[in-house]
Order: sequence, then C-alpha cells, then structure tokens
Amino acid sequence: MPKIVDHEKRKKQIAEATWRVILDLGMEGASVRNIAKEAGVSLGALRHYFSTQDELLVYAMKLVKEQATIRINEITMSELPPKEKILKVLLEIVPVNEETMAEMEVWFAFTFHARHKEDIFDAQHDGIFIGMQNLIHYLDQHQLLRKDLDKEIETERLYALVDGIALHAMLESKRVNKERIINVLTHHLDSICVEG
Amino acid sequence: MPKIVDHEKRKKQIAEATWRVILDLGMEGASVRNIAKEAGVSLGALRHYFSTQDELLVYAMKLVKEQATIRINEITMSELPPKEKILKVLLEIVPVNEETMAEMEVWFAFTFHARHKEDIFDAQHDGIFIGMQNLIHYLDQHQLLRKDLDKEIETERLYALVDGIALHAMLESKRVNKERIINVLTHHLDSICVEG
Repeated sequence: MPKIVDHEKRKKQIAEATWRVILDLGMEGASVRNIAKEAGVSLGALRHYFSTQDELLVYAMKLVKEQATIRINEITMSELPPKEKILKVLLEIVPVNEETMAEMEVWFAFTFHARHKEDIFDAQHDGIFIGMQNLIHYLDQHQLLRKDLDKEIETERLYALVDGIALHAMLESKRVNKERIINVLTHHLDSICVEG
Repeated sequence: MPKIVDHEKRKKQIAEATWRVILDLGMEGASVRNIAKEAGVSLGALRHYFSTQDELLVYAMKLVKEQATIRINEITMSELPPKEKILKVLLEIVPVNEETMAEMEVWFAFTFHARHKEDIFDAQHDGIFIGMQNLIHYLDQHQLLRKDLDKEIETERLYALVDGIALHAMLESKRVNKERIINVLTHHLDSICVEG
C-alpha cells in the first residue's frame, strides 16, 4: 500500500482513540499521553501526526462531522417518502444508538472545551442549523409544511428540539430512550405538516 | 452580626467567585487555587469552608438552582394571566440576560464535569423536567391546553425545546437573541394552546 493511505489510516486510528478516551475520562483525561497510550502509538509518533492537542481534537471532531454527513447523505439520496426521510435524518443527529451517542458525547465535550479557546472555536459550527433549514425547506417544497407557519421560526424550533432531546438522551438516557425520542419527533413533524 | 451569618455569606462569596472563574476560564481553570484568588481569600480559608473542589462545585451549583427557583416562585405567585405567566417562567430558564446566561454557562460546564465523577452526579438533576410537567399540567388545569395532546409527550417536547434553545442562546448568541427566543417560545405555546 502507498504510504499516503497508511498516513490517513493512522490519523483516523488516533482520532478514534481520542473519542474512546473522551468517552471514558471526559475532556480532562484527553491528554496527548493518554490518547497515545489508547491508540497504541508512541508519544513521538502521535506528535508526528498532530503537533498540538488542539490540532488532534479538531481533527477528531471533523471526523465525527464527516461520518454523520455521509450517513445523512445516504438517507437523503434514498427513495423513502419525504416525511419518513426527514424523521430518519433527525434520528442520525439525535443519539439513538451507541455510535451516535458516542459522537454526541464527544461533540459536547469538545464544544465546552473549545469555548474558552478562541483559536479552535470555528470547529464547533457543526452545520446543523443549516441542515434544519434544508429540512423545513424540503417539507415546504413537497407541499407538506403547513402554510400558516413561519419557516424561520420553525427552523429555530426544530433545531432547538433536536439538540435539546439529544442532550437529554445523553444525560437522562433512562427516560429519554429511543421509543420516546421517535414519539416526540414524530409528533413534532405531524404538528408542522398538513394532514394526511 | 452573629458568626453563622458571616459563615454563609463567605460561602456564597466563594461560590460567586467560582462562577466568575468558570465563566472566564472554563471548568479547566476552576482550580481551588484560582477560585481562592478570585474570592480574595487564602487557600487555607477556602479549605475551611470546602474541603474538596467537588464540594465547592456542588455548593456553587445548588446556589444557581436556588436562585432560579426563587425567581420562578415569585412569578408563579404573581397575578399574571396563565399563558403570560408560563412564558415568563420559561424566560427564567432560557438565558435572555447576563445573569441567566452566566447560570447556564456554569450549569453546562458543571454538568459535563460531573458526568465522569459518579459521586457528585446527583447535583446535576436540576428539576427542570418536573417543572415542565407542572407547566403543562397548569395549562391543562386552566383549560388552555389543546385536548388532543398527550401531556407526557408535550412535557418532553417543551423540555427539549427549552434546553435546546438555551444551549443555542449560549453557543450562537448572535442569531439566538432575546427577541428570537421569545418568538419561538410564544409560537410554541400558541401551538399547544386552544385558540383565543
């Protein structure tokens, strides 16, 4: 295999080790030393790929975003009926399985870490607001959105609902389980769509 | 003044210094040393009141909760019309001014700090879910809640909406300003209430 592939593979492996460390120990435990140990590489090797901890964290976050984007694009391209499609996209953002739960944990941990470091702050713009704008627009294009609604307000409301329930799925996972999440999101979609 | 008053006053003063440190430096900067310096007390004096950092953080969080509860109770006891009262309560939870924004910041920072420390985990149950349950019940008691709605689902939806928009007010405060928050919450309340 050419070297460039190994390079990317190794970076991804280190990023995945980063997530595991954040999941286990929180951001406080996400030292370069702990991450190198978890990834099974030397500190020197890790520093070869990422010269600072922040560089590594930003890369790890970009991977989270990329993975979610790939999954969402697959759904968008599918032949599902519009409303079903939208529910499925929302369920890729709100954690309903181990993979998305881990992504969410890492995202929140990172966001609060990055809040006090202006230089890496940009990475936190996750594009979900624009995604919600697209979903509302999509419903409208398919004549499904109720005509009396303000699209701007509905985008903001859907965005708040999705991130709020994602937060609760993480912090209060016993009550906010998959069934309940689907119930709330389905009810919300029904409430903004025309009947039938 | 009797000594016990001074004692409580000093503890509160240290808790307020804790918030300021968390607001400035994030949880990573909230060392006992930094907090003592901000409060203008010696490390020894701080340790007299709080023997560990976690004890201090839990106390600081309880104060946040108490302050919010006092403000909400005042609104609840007032003579406002039911729907107006509920909007006002929600605006005590979602940050629309400097005071509530600081509370929110501290609450989020603390919650993510506490997630990986099981012994202080209890402090994160902030009672907002039960508060939302009470609001929905209150609307129903006053014949304002639409009869076709499921109260359990509406509680969960309102709770997610409130925490989601609070999160966005903090992270994306330029777009999610006071006017927009009031717009979204008012629209949501209108959508679950009977007309007129």
